[in-house]
Amino acid sequence: MLQISDKGKMVPASPIRKLVPYANQAKERGIRVFHLNIGQPDIRTPEIALEVIRRLQMSVIEYTDSAGNHTLRSKLASYYQKLGISINEDNILITTGGSEAILFAFMSTLNEGDEIIIPEPFYANYAAFAVMAGAKIKTVTATIENNFALPAISEFEKQITPRTKGIVIINPNNPTGYLYSQSELEALGKIIKKHNLYLYSDEVYRRYCYDGLKHFSVMNLKGIEENTILFDSMSKRYSECGIRVGAIISRNKEILNAALKFGMARLCPPALGQIAAEASLETTEEYFHNVYEEYIRRRDYMVEALNKMPGVICPTPQGAFYSIVKLPVDDSEKFAKWLLEEFDHNRQTVMLAPASGFYHTPGLGKNEVRIAYVLKISDLQKAMEVLDIALKIYPGRTE
Amino acid sequence: MLQISDKGKMVPASPIRKLVPYANQAKERGIRVFHLNIGQPDIRTPEIALEVIRRLQMSVIEYTDSAGNHTLRSKLASYYQKLGISINEDNILITTGGSEAILFAFMSTLNEGDEIIIPEPFYANYAAFAVMAGAKIKTVTATIENNFALPAISEFEKQITPRTKGIVIINPNNPTGYLYSQSELEALGKIIKKHNLYLYSDEVYRRYCYDGLKHFSVMNLKGIEENTILFDSMSKRYSECGIRVGAIISRNKEILNAALKFGMARLCPPALGQIAAEASLETTEEYFHNVYEEYIRRRDYMVEALNKMPGVICPTPQGAFYSIVKLPVDDSEKFAKWLLEEFDHNRQTVMLAPASGFYHTPGLGKNEVRIAYVLKISDLQKAMEVLDIALKIYPGRTE
Repeated sequence: MLQISDKGKMVPASPIRKLVPYANQAKERGIRVFHLNIGQPDIRTPEIALEVIRRLQMSVIEYTDSAGNHTLRSKLASYYQKLGISINEDNILITTGGSEAILFAFMSTLNEGDEIIIPEPFYANYAAFAVMAGAKIKTVTATIENNFALPAISEFEKQITPRTKGIVIINPNNPTGYLYSQSELEALGKIIKKHNLYLYSDEVYRRYCYDGLKHFSVMNLKGIEENTILFDSMSKRYSECGIRVGAIISRNKEILNAALKFGMARLCPPALGQIAAEASLETTEEYFHNVYEEYIRRRDYMVEALNKMPGVICPTPQGAFYSIVKLPVDDSEKFAKWLLEEFDHNRQTVMLAPASGFYHTPGLGKNEVRIAYVLKISDLQKAMEVLDIALKIYPGRTE
Repeated sequence: MLQISDKGKMVPASPIRKLVPYANQAKERGIRVFHLNIGQPDIRTPEIALEVIRRLQMSVIEYTDSAGNHTLRSKLASYYQKLGISINEDNILITTGGSEAILFAFMSTLNEGDEIIIPEPFYANYAAFAVMAGAKIKTVTATIENNFALPAISEFEKQITPRTKGIVIINPNNPTGYLYSQSELEALGKIIKKHNLYLYSDEVYRRYCYDGLKHFSVMNLKGIEENTILFDSMSKRYSECGIRVGAIISRNKEILNAALKFGMARLCPPALGQIAAEASLETTEEYFHNVYEEYIRRRDYMVEALNKMPGVICPTPQGAFYSIVKLPVDDSEKFAKWLLEEFDHNRQTVMLAPASGFYHTPGLGKNEVRIAYVLKISDLQKAMEVLDIALKIYPGRTE
């Protein structure tokens, strides 16, 4: 009988994207929707990247190397070296976005039924890639009360079974904005070593650390060089999410070789995106300085505005451009739908990502949402105003 | 213990790409390598596609819709309608190349241990995507003596078990160049219906049918509308392999919905590639006429040149731009390596794809190679000359 596969049934619809049809309907009714749901920055892509695309010389857009263009890999290696991460181009496999980096790494290291541990809430698409690889996710829970810091190492230990193959860490964290400290990561490195696990580290928001805090990469943890697998992406760093260029970085040759076989099967990462990515690596410090200032302004504005709303709790994110925010509502998914279907203030509403989709444990995050502060201040102001009014009249308000 | 996954071990290295390091070494020694191994046409990408990229207006390269840009899907639907294939944009999911179409379709329809039947030889990367989905490939064997026509339906029936979920057909065929007739496909449609299987049809070479033969799409087979899943790609049709834009087309809503969930997990197909793809759909008939004439010239030249070589058999391909060619050698993989490592004629050699990688049954295709006639006539001439001389002096020659 014709049937959707188990994986096709199990794979969750993205919590960020599944409400899109409701948003589209609102727009069709003439409502302006402020998108706080998705990490799509409005920041300009660096001119150098747009320019290289506009000056495209090729007359045939050919396949590239399956591992990515040699010149891109070589410049990306220099980029890491400048950050103090000693890797070379042989440690890099260019992928179609950070998404494919996760997929290939999971496919290369996890068997059907293997387990990985992730602190929740976590970037929801990890659940989909785990389904694709047939792996099971186990979680340790970070809490808003604790600013979403790394849960105690003893909590990780409790989740380790003979099927545990690795731990996933997202740093700075999406969706919480928490930045793990060197000592938190060193503690994590110890159990990685003790149990000989993989440490998958998603550092795509590395460029966005605030308040003078420094990012520490797991690639610099000693003694687990063969265990660490880094996921990177150009999308957020250079505000070019659409180019779909990311990378797996690892010093473990066996893993990269296996990943490359999956890479050969899909032929190559996008050629045009790779050209933009390579140029982006030359982005000036001035660009980043301006972007940094802009995000700080947005963050500070948003955190203050949210915490002023009665019953709302918003921790101050130290990195990335997200925050998990507690709202005085019965069910944030219902609230998010209501915002799109039933509410408007002066023909305006906001789209939020219900946080339950970022938790693995059923029932958690029901009164939380993820907010991405990727809108310019004037829009963010309007969005906060709208949210404030909405919370006051939402029928499912709890306090 | 740190280990590569079973899938990481099982996934085969691409027969087209795994000899690339040997080719690179030959190039480093100053040898010119004619690439007959890979379907990378030297035909210019349509100017209209290059032009739209050079005139890029956007200032932020954003994510697109997970299902692909609405305008691209709508124009692609019109393209099919003009071909007499009645589908609309809701039947289309844009993917990152045809490769991702295969992956998502397999992930959405196949469980661990399920079986699919493919006539061999077949496009080798199907094996990798089957591994990723945990599915088993069973084969029916097409033979060079029979010009690689569809094997008898009774042979398919013999391979059907309770775990069989579908049949894959590549039409026109890569790697054989065979074009399946309407009556062959109707016969196939009957067993699809009888056993209620999926029919996955890869029609990415649709535009390349020769000798006045017409392409018949499985989308026009009656009575199995819910069973058929079409894989398409812009890569070959518009000589833009690097843009990585393809599509899954199906009238089965459940399948497309499941595939979209995998699509949401990877966020979106490449934005720049989609822009090029959409423009490409406006490519003139004149462009195709010229390309067609060029391929016919190349094919006719190559088939004649190969069949003149003692001991070589090359059937006349009716579609695509490949042929499986029988050579008087002990082992075509050894021969292909020898061509790159030990042989040159006036500092020139050729790169071939050993055919064994296109067969699933061990031992088959050992004295066959796949040749892609994607080089201009003057280069093809040189390549044939080089191959002729190489075959005469190859130590492993069998006749």
